Amino acid sequence: MSALTDLQATLDPSRKSWVESANEPTHNFSIQNLPFGIFSDGLNTTRRVGVAIGDWIVDLAALESAGLLTVPLPGDGRNTVFVRDALNDFIALGRDVWRGVRVQLSRVLSRDNASLRDDAELRGRVLIRQADATMHLPLQIPGYTDFYSSKEHATNVGSMFRDPKNALLPNWSEMPIGYNGRASSVVVSGTPVRRPNGQLKLPDQERPVFGACRKLDIELETGFVIGGGNALGEPIACADAEAHIFGMVLLNDWSARDIQQWEYVPLGPFNAKTFATTISPWIVTLDALEPFRVAQPVQEPQPLAYLRHEGDHAFDIALEVTLRAQGAKQATTIARTNFRHMYWTMAQQLAHHTVSGCNTRVGDLMGSGTISGPTEDSYGSLLELTWNGKKPLELKEGGTRSFIEDGDELTLAGWCQGDGYRVGFGTCVGEIVAAGGEV
Amino acid sequence: MSALTDLQATLDPSRKSWVESANEPTHNFSIQNLPFGIFSDGLNTTRRVGVAIGDWIVDLAALESAGLLTVPLPGDGRNTVFVRDALNDFIALGRDVWRGVRVQLSRVLSRDNASLRDDAELRGRVLIRQADATMHLPLQIPGYTDFYSSKEHATNVGSMFRDPKNALLPNWSEMPIGYNGRASSVVVSGTPVRRPNGQLKLPDQERPVFGACRKLDIELETGFVIGGGNALGEPIACADAEAHIFGMVLLNDWSARDIQQWEYVPLGPFNAKTFATTISPWIVTLDALEPFRVAQPVQEPQPLAYLRHEGDHAFDIALEVTLRAQGAKQATTIARTNFRHMYWTMAQQLAHHTVSGCNTRVGDLMGSGTISGPTEDSYGSLLELTWNGKKPLELKEGGTRSFIEDGDELTLAGWCQGDGYRVGFGTCVGEIVAAGGEV
Repeated sequence: MSALTDLQATLDPSRKSWVESANEPTHNFSIQNLPFGIFSDGLNTTRRVGVAIGDWIVDLAALESAGLLTVPLPGDGRNTVFVRDALNDFIALGRDVWRGVRVQLSRVLSRDNASLRDDAELRGRVLIRQADATMHLPLQIPGYTDFYSSKEHATNVGSMFRDPKNALLPNWSEMPIGYNGRASSVVVSGTPVRRPNGQLKLPDQERPVFGACRKLDIELETGFVIGGGNALGEPIACADAEAHIFGMVLLNDWSARDIQQWEYVPLGPFNAKTFATTISPWIVTLDALEPFRVAQPVQEPQPLAYLRHEGDHAFDIALEVTLRAQGAKQATTIARTNFRHMYWTMAQQLAHHTVSGCNTRVGDLMGSGTISGPTEDSYGSLLELTWNGKKPLELKEGGTRSFIEDGDELTLAGWCQGDGYRVGFGTCVGEIVAAGGEV
Repeated sequence: MSALTDLQATLDPSRKSWVESANEPTHNFSIQNLPFGIFSDGLNTTRRVGVAIGDWIVDLAALESAGLLTVPLPGDGRNTVFVRDALNDFIALGRDVWRGVRVQLSRVLSRDNASLRDDAELRGRVLIRQADATMHLPLQIPGYTDFYSSKEHATNVGSMFRDPKNALLPNWSEMPIGYNGRASSVVVSGTPVRRPNGQLKLPDQERPVFGACRKLDIELETGFVIGGGNALGEPIACADAEAHIFGMVLLNDWSARDIQQWEYVPLGPFNAKTFATTISPWIVTLDALEPFRVAQPVQEPQPLAYLRHEGDHAFDIALEVTLRAQGAKQATTIARTNFRHMYWTMAQQLAHHTVSGCNTRVGDLMGSGTISGPTEDSYGSLLELTWNGKKPLELKEGGTRSFIEDGDELTLAGWCQGDGYRVGFGTCVGEIVAAGGEV
């Protein structure tokens, strides 16, 4: 079989695993998924590369040393690319290697493959329960960029803060507007997020005051991860862009709306967003998402030539946000939407990012921008869901919310639903802790 | 003598070196300076840490292995911190170590110290002529932030593009406005810079067109380098901020004004700046700048408490920009100004950057923002010098300039002039090459 046929076989909806939990039709981590992450566990606190399958993690270093996984050596003199703090060195080996690992894992985990299935001692070394593991930030992130590519979101924000009649700025329909984010404060799901302090401009005061953010918000986003960068001065063509993408994560672009409103003119958001960005621990590869490719929205006007691509470049990823108040048993679903609504595609974002000659590097993270759908319950931020606090949300348990309160736990979830299986992202969770005192 | 007395002695204006070129009163690299960089040379292409003295570079790894320099080991099992692609590992050892190296180098290079001076064989191994060396990007830069802290620059820009009567936006006087830059495209002095392509909105056309930037500009800036970071959620107090700074460089924030004007609302500049940022190769330590500390401009209104500091926090650094047209023998000085004009100090910038809880890391680069002085010949950008092209500059050789033309070489220079010695930055050079074709 050719490499491409092998890759195609990993997407076969009828393929089942001997890891039975992976076969549940709504489990995030089917054998069709095989997302990559960095984990450690109580018995082995070394951070290393793992792949999720059902309720378990496959330890790739252990599988490799058992001879069931073959990967080129990293070239830095070390004897495996899988005992690492981050996926970067593995990703840097290139797309053929990612795909080769996917193909090998899909085989080893297939119901009819006995090599690992029937070797209890080896299984004990190679498989770690997710419940017993700690997930870490999967990447060393050299650069983080955030886009603003949902037409519904940009329209809502423009209606609220600028002019409802001309909500979309003229440049918005011509390019995937983006800005540089702060890579240092990207944290992995589960990391508590401290409410930021900053300058607040209150309507009844002439000068700003210093204090804790009063309008703390989420932004429901996905992010994509650069798997193959480009050199300075050498743009990536839109038609080639997807080949540069390793995979996707869920991303919560925490936002301090009051700080943002006062600071953002003319150079964009800064302190309002640099205090934290949370991503999910598992990177779902673009290969695993292939069956869920759908048409992007019609773009009118037709973009300039460098932003054009043939075919379908959106993905059908169901997304939801839940909020659980401190001490509450029940979480409330506050938004349901889909990544397919995004106006600008990831390929267009990457082509635009590099058209000026800007280089990208393995591990760079690119946020989609808030993903809002067309209906009022599909907006990707509390700003939009409560219309800047004017229409508070009623929680099932814990009162009402205009914005986030201390102790609130926000969870993003996302998945592609196949026929009898799911390619899921898991969750992206953050709990807000109270602001610190003045320095 | 105490460590502080030793450090004080390195600043003694009467100290001279046996490296005679260092004693010229206007040489950038006096024995009082001792800036750090990364170099290689034809005989030894390994990148390593060097310190400039006169026309020479001291190879710190060679000096260390000769027993004339004692530094703690890096803790990663390697036997020197000086054979590296970047200064980060050295900087991460902390301020006491930087200062200890400075003190030891100042002694070894002093006119009255025979240890290296009289050992010709050792000198041959330890000293490399700058003319024979290649300088490299001195840092691995995890994050790059650019501020906007010159009142004159912000006023000029506001006058041109917004309202001359209300040129300064209300937030400008309350905080050092900043934005996240793109770290991947920070390059070292001497790297050619390709003119960017992008979207241009021409006044006579309804839609933007794709093409090469027609208003390519410099921004004369300095940058400071984080020597000691802060943890997420733990802001740096303004009074402590300078202790977190390793040193300073010259920085040219190349800007595509036409791309910027079309793209920057509402999220700030992106493609207009991400194609390249050039820094000088030598990092001048804050310790070496100490004698040139001066009072910052009076700040009215008084900043909020988290932005207050006692004492003097500006530095008297003379700055100039020259432009040399392709093939021209003579360069023309197009601007002369001084870093002391900056309204917001580096300490205030860092305090503001972290007040929301944002973490910083060793090697982070923070640009000052364009440094414009009060007079028309002291503006730090062509945008201001030519008033958006309305008043072209006459070059000594090569015609006139509204903005940068292909083949133009732009050079920033900066220095502190002491009594009989100079603490200089050297130069920050970039030549513009023609834009690439469409992808």
